[in-house]
Amino acid sequence: MPEDALLSLQLDHLKELQSRYESVLADNGFDSLLIASGAAPYRHGDDQRWHFQGYGPFLHWTGLAGRENCWLLIRSGHKPVLWLYEPVDFWHANQALPEEPWQAFIELRSNQSPDAPVLDDPGHVAVIGDPALIDGVAREHNPEDLLAALDETRVHKTAYEIECLARANALALVGHRAARDAFANGESEFSISLAYQQATGQREADAPYHSIIGLNEHAGTLHYQYYDTRPPGHPRSLLIDAGVRFRGYCSDITRTTAGPGESHFAALVHGLERLQLRLCEMVAPGVDYVDIHRKSHQGIAALLSASGLVTGLTDEDIVEQGITRAFFPHGIGHFLGVQVHDVAGKPTPPPEDAPFLRLTRTLEPGMVVTIEPGLYFIPSLLEPLLAGEVGRHINRERLNSLRGCGGIRIEDNVAVTETGNRNLTRDRQG
Amino acid sequence: MPEDALLSLQLDHLKELQSRYESVLADNGFDSLLIASGAAPYRHGDDQRWHFQGYGPFLHWTGLAGRENCWLLIRSGHKPVLWLYEPVDFWHANQALPEEPWQAFIELRSNQSPDAPVLDDPGHVAVIGDPALIDGVAREHNPEDLLAALDETRVHKTAYEIECLARANALALVGHRAARDAFANGESEFSISLAYQQATGQREADAPYHSIIGLNEHAGTLHYQYYDTRPPGHPRSLLIDAGVRFRGYCSDITRTTAGPGESHFAALVHGLERLQLRLCEMVAPGVDYVDIHRKSHQGIAALLSASGLVTGLTDEDIVEQGITRAFFPHGIGHFLGVQVHDVAGKPTPPPEDAPFLRLTRTLEPGMVVTIEPGLYFIPSLLEPLLAGEVGRHINRERLNSLRGCGGIRIEDNVAVTETGNRNLTRDRQG
Repeated sequence: MPEDALLSLQLDHLKELQSRYESVLADNGFDSLLIASGAAPYRHGDDQRWHFQGYGPFLHWTGLAGRENCWLLIRSGHKPVLWLYEPVDFWHANQALPEEPWQAFIELRSNQSPDAPVLDDPGHVAVIGDPALIDGVAREHNPEDLLAALDETRVHKTAYEIECLARANALALVGHRAARDAFANGESEFSISLAYQQATGQREADAPYHSIIGLNEHAGTLHYQYYDTRPPGHPRSLLIDAGVRFRGYCSDITRTTAGPGESHFAALVHGLERLQLRLCEMVAPGVDYVDIHRKSHQGIAALLSASGLVTGLTDEDIVEQGITRAFFPHGIGHFLGVQVHDVAGKPTPPPEDAPFLRLTRTLEPGMVVTIEPGLYFIPSLLEPLLAGEVGRHINRERLNSLRGCGGIRIEDNVAVTETGNRNLTRDRQG
Repeated sequence: MPEDALLSLQLDHLKELQSRYESVLADNGFDSLLIASGAAPYRHGDDQRWHFQGYGPFLHWTGLAGRENCWLLIRSGHKPVLWLYEPVDFWHANQALPEEPWQAFIELRSNQSPDAPVLDDPGHVAVIGDPALIDGVAREHNPEDLLAALDETRVHKTAYEIECLARANALALVGHRAARDAFANGESEFSISLAYQQATGQREADAPYHSIIGLNEHAGTLHYQYYDTRPPGHPRSLLIDAGVRFRGYCSDITRTTAGPGESHFAALVHGLERLQLRLCEMVAPGVDYVDIHRKSHQGIAALLSASGLVTGLTDEDIVEQGITRAFFPHGIGHFLGVQVHDVAGKPTPPPEDAPFLRLTRTLEPGMVVTIEPGLYFIPSLLEPLLAGEVGRHINRERLNSLRGCGGIRIEDNVAVTETGNRNLTRDRQG
């Protein structure tokens, strides 16, 4: 899609948001809404601050990640007003906004102060954002029902949002290729993280979430949070879970690569990827997302059988006896948008057999979800299994030969269309 | 210094801390003190968290940056107890502590929960740390007088601390050399930041402060906070202000490099460096730090004269008429330790002629300070000068030819010794 077409879609997006917000405001008895973009808090007892990214509703309207101390006024029947914080300040740089068509839809004003602007006859106003920042504004703060209704306006992505998510995917894939090359060159987790950053042009602090880069056993820690600066003597596996932001929108992609000579592990990776593609194909309007989660357990059971890791049990028994949950303890995915775990995924709590599932809704056109099955060798989950009733069905020799590979996760980002789905991660891979 | 000698110094450091803390506790009527290491808060309205570094008093005792949800009990006449947060958790990795001699001085216990441990007969206890985390602990929280007295225990560094600060300097210098090489290769701010990280083995999120890397005009924004991913067509200058942590201790070093063909700018950089070295030599017991700040203005006045930027005024007039403050608007430096702007530097407010000065004390042995004069071309400060009375003394042609270089800052870390000083940044450069 050419740049012009994207910017034109953004106008439609804003018109749609105006309409969605106007009805939410009316339903909740407000005339207008002031959104605080937020600011990074100080570290406790220090004068250094965290790195700021952005508050969901502000990003939903503007996509301007990293913009601190801005304020956006939405008012029924009026043009939105965006106050940009642009102090005369020789300590910090003010990044100029590129001129773009959306600035015809939203009125821009410059604000020298980080404080909320004085509003001119806005009627009954709600203010939403970080309580520490809106504290001084004498209006109704973060009304719960209103926040829940605003979250709901983010569930069905506009064409503009889906295009942004697709671009965030395309950018991240360049990084994933660079990471795989660095792994093939025997580099450390730390160097692989730099290769990912270099290829995507995105610094660590701007990543939509902490990029997980685990070699060997580290691939088995779901949110592995360190980067080893020394490469392992024998690189057996790479798991990288990393995305980028594009105009505020996140990608969230995981790839797993087997090291040289790891044929059993490579076969498992291949098997999990085939399963993952089948699960992506299930994404369609009317499908209960919980069913995709449950189907993933059946698929993992079949994979455990086919690979010889589990013997003497039917696939159904492998699931029912909790074996798949020991190998795949997390949920199959979540909503994706201006936040990596986008909001409003759990109007109902997850079922007992999927306690970590972050999305429990029936799929509808416009929703964007991740599909991320995994298969891990996690000692604290496997030991009770091996020690228990079903232990005799587990091929310890095969399992032990794979433990050092840590685990596998394959994750794509998939949009629900009117008739089925669009895999945003794969549709540019050709 | 060999590793053994460092680890042995650490034992002396802990004995000294125990003694300092015991007298502070006694003075404030407490029997014991519980320190919360802290944890990274969530971003507002999101389930993603900031990257954690550490709380000063916890780092002062342990140096364990990045360790969340730990608790340290200091009790007069008893061994300190450190509860390490080590949950059985397949989501996150627990980093094992390397076995080191200090573990004979501090008792280690493992804690499955992030909550404060139950204390066994600790007497009258104070709890210090992030209020959000100690909220549930029914003790006296963050008593102000106690906090101030504890800050004061960090002012005079032990031999161990000075050695850690020296090592943090040596490590950072490797990064500064890599950055200069990347600049010479025509790389972007972003690529230079990756080169710095690669050379130091320190990821962005673990840096003691945001590394400032400005090319050309960007060198003139004091805390320039972005990294351009495109190199400028004509690289004229690099200003890099970046440190590392070593065992919790920070370095904070700035270097400025002139691009090829920038002979006037290179001469200014050279002149500022000679001034900076003279200022470093002033560091000694009994010297008022404010005097070093004032001396830096005299030196900058001389440099402005010698370079022909200012003509027809004596050096004294150049200072008195506010010209040096337009070229050098910040303070000459600050305390350095487990925080980059270490605590207790301003028992008295800064004088009117140095509003941003972060340190107003008379120097004493064991203090560690930065010495960081600068000379910048900042439009918002220069324009009023040019438009005013003194404008006719400023050589506009020379000034305009330099504006595109942004500015200069040269910064070392200097320890006050019994007889003078030790420049921790330069003593390993040979």
